[in-house]
Order: sequence, then structure tokens, then C-alpha cells
Amino acid sequence: MSTVDPFLIKLERARVAAKSLATVTTGQKNAALEAIAVALENGIDAVVEANARDLERGRADQIGEGLLDRLMLNEARLRALAAAVRDVIALPDPVGQVVRGSTLANGITINQVRVPFGVVGAIYEARPNVTVDIVALALKSGNGAVLRGGTAAENTNAVLVKLIQNAISSAGLDGDAVQTIDEFGREGAARLMKARGYVDVLIPRGSAGLIATVVQESTVPVIETGSGIVHVFVDATADEDMAVNIVRNSKTHRPSVCNAAETLLVHREAAERLLPRLAGELIAADVELSGDEVVRSIVAEVGAADDSTWATEHLALEMGVRVVDSIDEAIAHIDRYSTRHTEAIVTQDYANAERFLAEVDSAVVMVNASTRFTDGGEFGFGAEVGISTQKLHARGPMGLSELTSTKWLVRGAGQVR
Amino acid sequence: MSTVDPFLIKLERARVAAKSLATVTTGQKNAALEAIAVALENGIDAVVEANARDLERGRADQIGEGLLDRLMLNEARLRALAAAVRDVIALPDPVGQVVRGSTLANGITINQVRVPFGVVGAIYEARPNVTVDIVALALKSGNGAVLRGGTAAENTNAVLVKLIQNAISSAGLDGDAVQTIDEFGREGAARLMKARGYVDVLIPRGSAGLIATVVQESTVPVIETGSGIVHVFVDATADEDMAVNIVRNSKTHRPSVCNAAETLLVHREAAERLLPRLAGELIAADVELSGDEVVRSIVAEVGAADDSTWATEHLALEMGVRVVDSIDEAIAHIDRYSTRHTEAIVTQDYANAERFLAEVDSAVVMVNASTRFTDGGEFGFGAEVGISTQKLHARGPMGLSELTSTKWLVRGAGQVR
Repeated sequence: MSTVDPFLIKLERARVAAKSLATVTTGQKNAALEAIAVALENGIDAVVEANARDLERGRADQIGEGLLDRLMLNEARLRALAAAVRDVIALPDPVGQVVRGSTLANGITINQVRVPFGVVGAIYEARPNVTVDIVALALKSGNGAVLRGGTAAENTNAVLVKLIQNAISSAGLDGDAVQTIDEFGREGAARLMKARGYVDVLIPRGSAGLIATVVQESTVPVIETGSGIVHVFVDATADEDMAVNIVRNSKTHRPSVCNAAETLLVHREAAERLLPRLAGELIAADVELSGDEVVRSIVAEVGAADDSTWATEHLALEMGVRVVDSIDEAIAHIDRYSTRHTEAIVTQDYANAERFLAEVDSAVVMVNASTRFTDGGEFGFGAEVGISTQKLHARGPMGLSELTSTKWLVRGAGQVR
Repeated sequence: MSTVDPFLIKLERARVAAKSLATVTTGQKNAALEAIAVALENGIDAVVEANARDLERGRADQIGEGLLDRLMLNEARLRALAAAVRDVIALPDPVGQVVRGSTLANGITINQVRVPFGVVGAIYEARPNVTVDIVALALKSGNGAVLRGGTAAENTNAVLVKLIQNAISSAGLDGDAVQTIDEFGREGAARLMKARGYVDVLIPRGSAGLIATVVQESTVPVIETGSGIVHVFVDATADEDMAVNIVRNSKTHRPSVCNAAETLLVHREAAERLLPRLAGELIAADVELSGDEVVRSIVAEVGAADDSTWATEHLALEMGVRVVDSIDEAIAHIDRYSTRHTEAIVTQDYANAERFLAEVDSAVVMVNASTRFTDGGEFGFGAEVGISTQKLHARGPMGLSELTSTKWLVRGAGQVR
């Protein structure tokens, strides 16, 4: 394909460069990753200077302290990013792994092996650290990357991508494998979602609104990540200490992330026994509780819940609390309100544990463990590509192998049908 | 959810019924499949009568002999469909298979197990046999099915779906798991493509145009199947008999299917040696050849190719023939024109065989074998769900396990982070 459209030229460059990445050795990819880590360390001044301009504009646009903090890169954060790139060097290369294989009756051998997708597109908002994260994971898995990092971080991302491209080239690979399309603004993001033939998979990272837009608009296959209305169900037989530990940890260990619990369901038969201490410990940890009438009749400090309580991903020290009559009612509540990320039951009852595992349709279903364990690092995958809440291709924590496709290699000696 | 929208009522029924299918035993699902097979045999008269009405309308609408043949069901075809349903009974149930698992350092065990998608949507055209195929595969893998079989087969599909629903119910499962939306016409198909939350995956089966429309319009995740511009590259060192056998078999064994070869690439150094016999045997098998100037200078009977030759899936006894200067040119041609289904090299050269396997980016890449082997049955999967030409989720022949997602079952003893 040849074109004079500057947007398509960038995508075509990424596509051609990604093709060459598909067949380079792990050693060559690791050398490029090391070059990126070094470039980040050597480029601290340039990145911080560009970042200062983005921060200045962000302050002028009054984007808020939370966004400004996410936008900010300083020396410590850049050194941490370089260290994260080196962590990816240490991970096994998924490309070439044989998933399965056999010899057919006619003597033909078939092997299904992991291959890179080709080009991974990423759409995210005002988090320049994601630029480095995605590039490292894409490169290790043999993929090119086309990045739409958002206007708020445009100057920072431009400098980062230039550093990365030069580092990849200095290691003897094709630096064009990484492209930013920030300069094309919202239209560029819209075009990226329609860029079938150039981009093989699109990963949105950011707000629920951003993800919903990408899912609605994209004709490129999307991997949906992140949104988590996570439930903990405390069954009638739950051990008191275990219930308190798991609920408190699931809610308060890191409330701003997707595997944090948002709703506590308590079996009616355990409500009088457990709710006072459960609520008390949550309130002591500064969690604002909203409950139904039964909950409020037991714990006076709990505010009133409404339907929006159950349908909200708070990502903050807020939690809905509801008393249910049975495990069936708990599962029905989860089926109605869950985003199908993670749910946990706390129980001593074997049959209920197995029922919950079998009947709850979420990416991760737990018995007697904190929902905070839904995490690629905790699962032993090494890298954190994201947590898929869709059913196609990948579900739950995604490691590097989820950034690959497969192909079948068929070796014969002249066989025909 | 509650609704008075008759379209959504059907989808909601399928969703609720599919939920119950997710946890029934393999024995129960097999009993329902046997009931469907029996119902097809007992319902021959009713189906044939309904089919006659569709055929009559098809003739009145002059839809063509090929379509009429695909549309037609008679006793023999219905008995064959019943036999195909019984073949699915014999296949292993993918649901519950443990894909991988481990015990974490803290003692938590994690197991990734196969689970049904939920509801599989299918959009296809005038092939009532697909109704039975899809239902059998969906049911065996624990999924519900919402079917849009096309207006041309509307009467046949209505009777088939009613038979199937009653058969499933008679076996003690929820017959609502299977729904047809044919009565909602094109608007129903359009709504099915947007039915996120009701339908978990959409499989279009039919013409390239139909598939392209579904890919463009659907917000439900799609598995793209079928389209195959398949290449055979005869390398400089190819054995003459092997090249002739593989090319002839790949092109003529069943020209109307997606794994049939459409383009023959011949290395310049083998052109004089092999093209006369290759072309001669193809022409003797009634294949109409279109070639470049070099080919036509060697074989006078070959017509002139143009750019559309290389970009067309003929699905008929037609083939493009091109002479290339090198394996690089062969791979570049494939990269430009292939639909990334199947490509084969015929060679005696080890390095070229390995290069072709590594560098050609298609679902199935072959050395010295007929492209006709790209098939779920040939690969030992038992069932033929389709052949995916996309990179997400499934690539190449799809078995029953490709109609499943996974979830992680996490069992702890109170662990927190």
C-alpha cells in the first residue's frame, strides 16, 4: 500500500516494522528493551521538560489534582519506568511457544504456535507511564504499537516515543514499530478504531466512558479491560475473623483499583452475628457505607442505599451493603449488577462454595480469599497487561501470552486428500 | 430485565435458558442432542413441507439454482443432519476442562476452566442445515443460540427451531435456549449485532459481503470465519510429482470451499520445468487458468490475469498463476493478497520451508501438503465450527473448545494481601 495520508503513513510504517519484529530473536528484543531503559534514564531532563509543558497546560485547563498527578513524570518515576522495562526483559518470551500439536494419521505433523498479533493499538488518557508499559509489553511479544495517549500528555508522549524509536533502532530493530498518533487528535483516535488491516487488536485503558466508546465505535477487535463492580458475599456459615479480614482487605487495601470490592452481600442468617463488626471495622477504616433497611436496622451509622449504589464502581472508600435471604439471592444480585470481573464468597459450607464457583459468571470467582488477588502479578504472570472483563480471547488477568495470537504450522511429505 | 419488546423478550429468554445450560451435565446435554436427532427424523414431513414453501418462493424470486440447492432439505438430508447431531454427542464436552492451574506461594489454588460463552449468535443465509449444525455445537458446549437464518429459509427454520425447542424441553432442559429471530427481518439482524449483554459472541457464516457487514456493524464480539484466498507456492526445488499432486488436490478436490487454493505461485527457476505439466493437469481437470506474461509465454492456453485475479476468491474451477523471482516475492505477494487463511509451499529446501513457515502470517501455513487439510475434522477436532481468519480468540479450524470462554476458580483459606 502507498499513501500520502500522514495518518496512514504512520500506521503503514508500524505494520511493516511489526512484520520484521515477528521473527527476531528474544535476545534482540531484550537488547532493544535494555536500550529503551537506558534511553529513559539518559532522557530524564528532556522528558521532564516536555512534561512540565503538559502540566502547565493541564493547570491552565484546571484538569484537577488527580489527573495532574497521573500526568506527572519526575526523575524517580522515570527511573521506576526504566526498572519496569527491565522487569519485562526477565519475562519469558511467549512467541514460538508450542500450544499443542499432534501427528495426524497420514503422517502430517501439526503444531499450534504463539505468534505476535502484529500491531497493538492502545487508547488511553493522560498517563504517559502507559506509553512505556504498553511499548515494553508489545515489543517483548513481537508486536508493533500505535499509541493514542491523549492530548493532555501530548508533549510528554512525543518525547517518550522519540526516545523509544531511537532506542529500538540503536539495537538494530525497526524503530518505526512504535508510533504515536496524538498529533491527529480525536479524529486520529476515531480513525484508529476503524483501522482494520493496520491494527490487529485495540486495548483501551482508562475510564469506563473511554472503554465504552471504543467498544461501541471500533471495528478493530477490542480487548475490554478494567471495570470492576466486585462483590463479596458473606454466607451464613462464614467464619467471623475470616469474613472481616477478607471484606476489609478487599475494600480498603487499594480502593482505587478494579479488583477492589464495591458491594458487600451478607446472608440474613449471618447478619446479626457479623454485620456489627464488619461495618464497624469498615467505618473505622473510613469506608462510607450505604445499606438497605435491614442493614440500617442493625448498624445505625449506615446511610441509605438506592439502586445506583449497586450499579456504581466507586473506586473509593465507599461500599454498598445488602442483606440477602439466600445464596440464590446473592447470585441473582451479582448476575444483575456485576461487571463480571471478580466475586468472592466467604463460607464454611462446601456445597455453597462449589455452587458459587460454578454459577457465578465472572472472570475470577473466589472462595475465602481477598478479591485483591485478581492480578497478573499475583497469578504469577509477571506482567500486568490488564484484566479482561470480556469472554473472547482472554478473560481475567492477562499476561504476555494474551498479547499473542497463534498459527498452525503443518509439515507434510506430499500428502493430499 | 423485563420488557415488552418481542425481540428483546426472545433474547432475554435465550440468556436465561443459557445460564441454566452452563451447569448441566454432559449426559443431560447429550440426551437433549439425541432428542433433537430423533425429532429431526420424526419431523421429516413437517420440515419438507415448510421447505417446499421456501423453495417455491425462492423459485418465484429467481434466486438461482445454487441457492435453491443450498436451501433444499429432503429426507436424505434430514437423516444426514440427524446423524451429524449424533456425531456431536460422541465428541468430548469442553466445559469444565482445566486449561491450567497452580498453587500460589500463599497456598491459594487457581484453576482456569472452560465455561460456555453464554449465548452464541449466528447470522447466515439460506442454509437451513446451519440451523441444526450451530444448535448442536452450541448446546454441546453449554451455550444458548440466537439464530438469524435469513428470509429465504424462514419457513424451514421456523419448523426446525420449534422441533429443536420441543426436543430440548422433552429432555428436561430449557428449550428457550434456542431462538430464531427470522420474523424480525433485516432489522432483527441489525439489532442482533448491537445486542451486547444478551449475546456473547456473533458468528457470521456466508458470503464475504455478509461477513464484512457483520464485522463493520457489530458491537457484539465477532468471530470472523471463512474467506480464503489461498496460495500454493511451488519453489525452485519442488519435486515434480509432489507439486502436481498438491496443486491439483488443493484446487480441484472441492473448489467451492474456503481451503481450496485460488492462486498458484511458481518460482522462476522451476517455471520451465514444472509449469507445462502443472497447467496441463489443471486444464485437464477443467480449471480455467489466468496467468501473467511469463506464464502465458510458457503455456499458451492460459488467459491473461489482471490485478483482480489475485484479489478474488473464485470458489470455482478458476485459478490465477504467477511466476515469482524468489521466495521473498512469493511471500510479498501472499502478504498483499492473502485473506490469511491457508498458504502452502512445495519445496525440497529446508531453509525455505522454515522461512515460509515463520514469515507467512496466515492461520495455517503448510509445507508439502494440500491446503485441503485446513479442516477441523482433518485436524482431529471432530466438529467443524468454522475456520477463523481473525487473530483474536481463535485462529484456523475451530473445534468445540473455541465455543467456550474460561474463568478462574480461586480457592483460599482466608488469605488477604
